[in-house]
Amino acid sequence: MKDKIIGMLRQKDGYVSGEDISNVLGVSRTAVWKTINTLRDEEYIIDSSSRKGYKLIESPDVLSQVEIEPYLSTKYIGRNIIYYDTLDSTNNKARDMAIEGAEEGLVVIAEEQTKGRGRLGRVWTTPKLSSAAFSIAVRPSIKPEDASGLTLIMGDAVCRAIRKVTGLNAKIKWPNDIIVNGKKVCGILTEMNAEIERINYIVLGVGININVDKFPEDIKHIATSLNLELGKLVSRKEIVAEVFNEFEMLYDDFKENGLKNIMDEFKSFSVTLGKKVRVISINEEFEGEAIDITDDGLLVVKLEDGSTRNVISGDVSVRGISGYAE
Amino acid sequence: MKDKIIGMLRQKDGYVSGEDISNVLGVSRTAVWKTINTLRDEEYIIDSSSRKGYKLIESPDVLSQVEIEPYLSTKYIGRNIIYYDTLDSTNNKARDMAIEGAEEGLVVIAEEQTKGRGRLGRVWTTPKLSSAAFSIAVRPSIKPEDASGLTLIMGDAVCRAIRKVTGLNAKIKWPNDIIVNGKKVCGILTEMNAEIERINYIVLGVGININVDKFPEDIKHIATSLNLELGKLVSRKEIVAEVFNEFEMLYDDFKENGLKNIMDEFKSFSVTLGKKVRVISINEEFEGEAIDITDDGLLVVKLEDGSTRNVISGDVSVRGISGYAE
Repeated sequence: MKDKIIGMLRQKDGYVSGEDISNVLGVSRTAVWKTINTLRDEEYIIDSSSRKGYKLIESPDVLSQVEIEPYLSTKYIGRNIIYYDTLDSTNNKARDMAIEGAEEGLVVIAEEQTKGRGRLGRVWTTPKLSSAAFSIAVRPSIKPEDASGLTLIMGDAVCRAIRKVTGLNAKIKWPNDIIVNGKKVCGILTEMNAEIERINYIVLGVGININVDKFPEDIKHIATSLNLELGKLVSRKEIVAEVFNEFEMLYDDFKENGLKNIMDEFKSFSVTLGKKVRVISINEEFEGEAIDITDDGLLVVKLEDGSTRNVISGDVSVRGISGYAE
Repeated sequence: MKDKIIGMLRQKDGYVSGEDISNVLGVSRTAVWKTINTLRDEEYIIDSSSRKGYKLIESPDVLSQVEIEPYLSTKYIGRNIIYYDTLDSTNNKARDMAIEGAEEGLVVIAEEQTKGRGRLGRVWTTPKLSSAAFSIAVRPSIKPEDASGLTLIMGDAVCRAIRKVTGLNAKIKWPNDIIVNGKKVCGILTEMNAEIERINYIVLGVGININVDKFPEDIKHIATSLNLELGKLVSRKEIVAEVFNEFEMLYDDFKENGLKNIMDEFKSFSVTLGKKVRVISINEEFEGEAIDITDDGLLVVKLEDGSTRNVISGDVSVRGISGYAE
């Protein structure tokens, strides 16, 4: 009911009468009045006049369905948002819902994560109301070995969204970090559940530092936020909605055509290509120059002896970016 | 306490006094007596004599930890068995326990599955007390694209176990069916949860038709049991324990060396090689002759035009086996 009332108030610039709301929604005027008060508790500023009714003055900067929806142009990504004030991990919740049969495009958003995870089990902090942490569940008909492509298109979507909303020159550190001015603003954690030949589901977790105004001493040389780089607050809901919009376009194309249509853009967004890199994978560690990204999304690294290696994933440090010492 | 009492009774051929049991376990003689009665309810046949104490005459054919343990030679596979009389799906339970942090080698066994799953979401029936349905959770440090090797080594382990316990000429229909006399006795369902570059956990689900004496009309031409092929009942706990024993050996080797040490044996167990096959994968369907299995476990199929294709997985029908019409 809260969503519906906000929706009605949004549709009109002026006042909406309590009687209209109660008629449209089929509830009593007392119920309308109680819900308006609940919304005020949630920091919606709603003016009321005994003659004219209710008018929405200001919405809080929260990442709920009703706040994000006005910015969405998608068909299915983000059309079903499960919203939490606080949650252990959006990836865990999205995984649980995927196990229970969640449809493609389900989004879990939390204003705060208490056990947010980055890649390889690392901690990812989501400070309340100043970041965005969300996870999208999808079920593409692709082979498990092609799942890494989804990390790349999500990175591309985040880059596009940041560029569009803030004008900042967002870049991608292959495979899954988004960089602004040499520091990380966003990480992506892709987790899949698969049989050998088919994906059951994939959860794409995204954490973006949006209005975080301070980072701990030990990471402030490698981490930043859109706010710090831009010098002003950024609308979190616009960023998140734009990520959904861009992701859906890229994902629809990916399901049909793989990565080939975005590779030019992806390479142009890359901070990795042409740089010296150090690759740390499960069984080995080596250095070389990142010279290309294949149409399958693999990083091509040229070693000192002139041979090349295609890297599927792993930790890649780029000289000069995020703390790979010169 | 039940496990400990059975353990004590097993250690001795003759009678064990109630007093000894109560002293060793630090419980009252009444508690011992009550537990003995519970065990009798579970179809343990235990003789009691007021002078001599208790003697284990016969154990039921159940797949509990205490029944399987005497046959185990493993270090960690099957040393922690979670046993259920009935369960929706052992793979689902093992997955949930893996999410909660279960150690490598945890086994979930159910005497009956109500929602047992085969590959690609198909139904797998586990009739009570006449089959074996279990799932093993493992966490190998391998890349997700190498996970299909685990299906192959589990198939090899099941083949070895059936051969050892029954003498039947068990074969493997690549990648994951075990065949006796042209019919299926066992299926394997491998499910993994992974980030792009590392496995979080893998659950290997195994269903073996052991003493099933009748199959429904619609599948009896493609399914059989060890009992039907051998003409006598087979010890379920011995089969299951042997699968664990063989699997642990093969798995330890796989983690070090990949598949290369078992490929000769694996090929010799294959009913697929040299046969005409039809391959149905996500996006295509084709026929050819299965001519080899690579060291990575891929099936090499030679097409009519002389070209070859390496198949990672998918549905493979073999002419003459399990209902691929001649």
